[in-house]
Amino acid sequence: MKAMLIVADGMADRPIKELGWKTPLEVARKSSMDFIAESGVCGIMDIVSPGIPPGSDTGNMALLGYDPYRYYTGRGALEALGWGLEVREGDVCFRCNFATVDDDLTVLDRRAGRISNDDASKLAESLQKVKLSDSSVKFLFQNTIQHRAALVLRGPKLSASVSNSDPKKVGEKVLEVKPLNNTAEASFTAKIVNELLQKFHRILKNHKVNHERVKRGLPPANIILCRGAGNIPNLPTLSEIYNINATCIAVTSIIRGVCKVAGMRLTTVEGATGTPQTDYLAKAKAAVEALKGDNHFVFLHVKAPDVTSHDGDFQQKIKVIENIDSMIAYIIDHVDMSETYIAITADHTTSCVTRNHEGDPVPIAITGPFVRKDDVKRYDERSCSKGGLGRIRGVDLMPMLMNFIGKVEKFGA
Amino acid sequence: MKAMLIVADGMADRPIKELGWKTPLEVARKSSMDFIAESGVCGIMDIVSPGIPPGSDTGNMALLGYDPYRYYTGRGALEALGWGLEVREGDVCFRCNFATVDDDLTVLDRRAGRISNDDASKLAESLQKVKLSDSSVKFLFQNTIQHRAALVLRGPKLSASVSNSDPKKVGEKVLEVKPLNNTAEASFTAKIVNELLQKFHRILKNHKVNHERVKRGLPPANIILCRGAGNIPNLPTLSEIYNINATCIAVTSIIRGVCKVAGMRLTTVEGATGTPQTDYLAKAKAAVEALKGDNHFVFLHVKAPDVTSHDGDFQQKIKVIENIDSMIAYIIDHVDMSETYIAITADHTTSCVTRNHEGDPVPIAITGPFVRKDDVKRYDERSCSKGGLGRIRGVDLMPMLMNFIGKVEKFGA
Repeated sequence: MKAMLIVADGMADRPIKELGWKTPLEVARKSSMDFIAESGVCGIMDIVSPGIPPGSDTGNMALLGYDPYRYYTGRGALEALGWGLEVREGDVCFRCNFATVDDDLTVLDRRAGRISNDDASKLAESLQKVKLSDSSVKFLFQNTIQHRAALVLRGPKLSASVSNSDPKKVGEKVLEVKPLNNTAEASFTAKIVNELLQKFHRILKNHKVNHERVKRGLPPANIILCRGAGNIPNLPTLSEIYNINATCIAVTSIIRGVCKVAGMRLTTVEGATGTPQTDYLAKAKAAVEALKGDNHFVFLHVKAPDVTSHDGDFQQKIKVIENIDSMIAYIIDHVDMSETYIAITADHTTSCVTRNHEGDPVPIAITGPFVRKDDVKRYDERSCSKGGLGRIRGVDLMPMLMNFIGKVEKFGA
Repeated sequence: MKAMLIVADGMADRPIKELGWKTPLEVARKSSMDFIAESGVCGIMDIVSPGIPPGSDTGNMALLGYDPYRYYTGRGALEALGWGLEVREGDVCFRCNFATVDDDLTVLDRRAGRISNDDASKLAESLQKVKLSDSSVKFLFQNTIQHRAALVLRGPKLSASVSNSDPKKVGEKVLEVKPLNNTAEASFTAKIVNELLQKFHRILKNHKVNHERVKRGLPPANIILCRGAGNIPNLPTLSEIYNINATCIAVTSIIRGVCKVAGMRLTTVEGATGTPQTDYLAKAKAAVEALKGDNHFVFLHVKAPDVTSHDGDFQQKIKVIENIDSMIAYIIDHVDMSETYIAITADHTTSCVTRNHEGDPVPIAITGPFVRKDDVKRYDERSCSKGGLGRIRGVDLMPMLMNFIGKVEKFGA
């Protein structure tokens, strides 16, 4: 027996007036998701806790069975790991943006005009050459996609308890990084980060790439904003807990980071982009391949519905849902359903109206040989609320799936 | 007001192909269980946590309201207590088997041909005479039913943090008992247990009972295998928590042990055997008697459905369910339903397909004068999932029942 968990990022939604007070899932044509619901057992699921909007990191940690209230240590380390940076125990990691500020350090553009990978690479190369005043600290700075970058600090006296330099709003000033507790380590780390960001700023202001950008009418990437300081979380791996091989198929770096700390294999799929234009079929093929190999568990994550939700584009969200449904159709057609459990869910609700992650529960459906099939015929928020699973928590899903494939040990005698 | 909790061990199941993808509960004729469901309020219940298969010990602890993650200390002490052995705080108890090994200590039969009580008694009598090298340690060794036995170690320097000698598989060698932590107590205990088991082996090898067994073509019970080291758990009794008198009607030793540490009275019912051939009517009569006396709460446990499930015999499981239903019919007819709450449930799902305890939820139905009767008309896994209780946890059942009979104090002012 094997199991696959398909997570459509932010696919759950609230009723939308323009859709006759239906949700995108309720409107989309999605016969494969409905097949999973109709042949399976359904319910609704609070990813972390009722009313609490999960992040991508905490949400997917919970879906892999790790209580984020116990294990979550911030976004920085997960994202750096997900980008393939080497992160060690004790390293302090930040998520960074290339951004544009004026001479007063007021933020004009938090993404430096969504700077190209090319320009960002050249700038990052120069930044990596900065020397810090304290030689006990090493750093790694790497651009990833467009304006996104990761910063890893390594040294014996560091702490992740420091604040952000990113004010998170255009029109506000860049913030000084401050210690968040009274330890010498936090003070020292804040000092180091401030020094580093100032040196970065000095280099970027005068960099020829930025001079050229200004000539081309583009905003200069003249500052690095950082946020989400964190260490690597200390998790027991899925292999340690369940004695399984597990593979992650995801593009989004933070999701890859979560899967990496869970000890999963990371697959890279050509054509998978994390956008609504991702190659859905390629992901489906990769998932089927992974399941046919020596994996007991495949985690398949699709970012696209969250992107459309943050844009408030519910028509596009419906199309993306229908594309995911085609992806699932391929999977159902190509795995042996007599020995496979497939679950479909979302890692959180993202509302096309508020354009934010929301704390409403998500629908969950599990099909497989020995589930207690219920009466639910459609996979959506309200249909699944009538299902045989009732209302469960995100951290409970993984033990349920692993129990179906015989990988949970009895507690007691 | 009084309450009775009827627990049918392992009665819940998964859908079975040969039953048209129904469960034994869905197929069985069981008008009395259905009466409880129809006149009562129903739900599904995760005995310990979704997806986690409970043991008999942890499952019934949870059903009596004790969180096993907090209170469970291993099988040994519960089983020894259940057999009526005197167990004191600090004693280290083991569940033991009479077994058969070859000269290399490879296990040939983990149950010594399911040795008779008679033979086992004679052997146990000899084993109790062994002298340990360290006089600070006393031990009690007692055979129970067939190959089963209990060992209790008593002394000032003992620890339950030691491993098993039982390899749990035929064809594997007997294991050396090892300390599971770095304390002097764990090392000392491991040493003592190894010494004791070696001395047992020497006596058993040359025992005339075994010579006679070999002559009769029976496997000699030439070794004692031990597992599940544990101390007595430290629980507040039901009487301390709810100010009630409570009685347990159960045959299985480990269940009796759980009820004993909960401070319950233990009833012995003539004809009750823990097998599918148990005297169901005798149990019913004992339960009614107990409820008519000064008990506020009666816990009635029937082992039989679990036995048939471990055998994979779903037809026999259906018959056992129908027998339990007759038992319940007698109870309903003979107690005053205007002042009695009756709950029916299982302590875990046991699948006739996997033949194991599984982590799927169990159905629960509670009838009584003032429950919020719902629409559910049948007592089974899927019908109850639509009930008014929703999905609850095992540890929540006891406070609910005790609240119905007015025995839970207000929390707060």
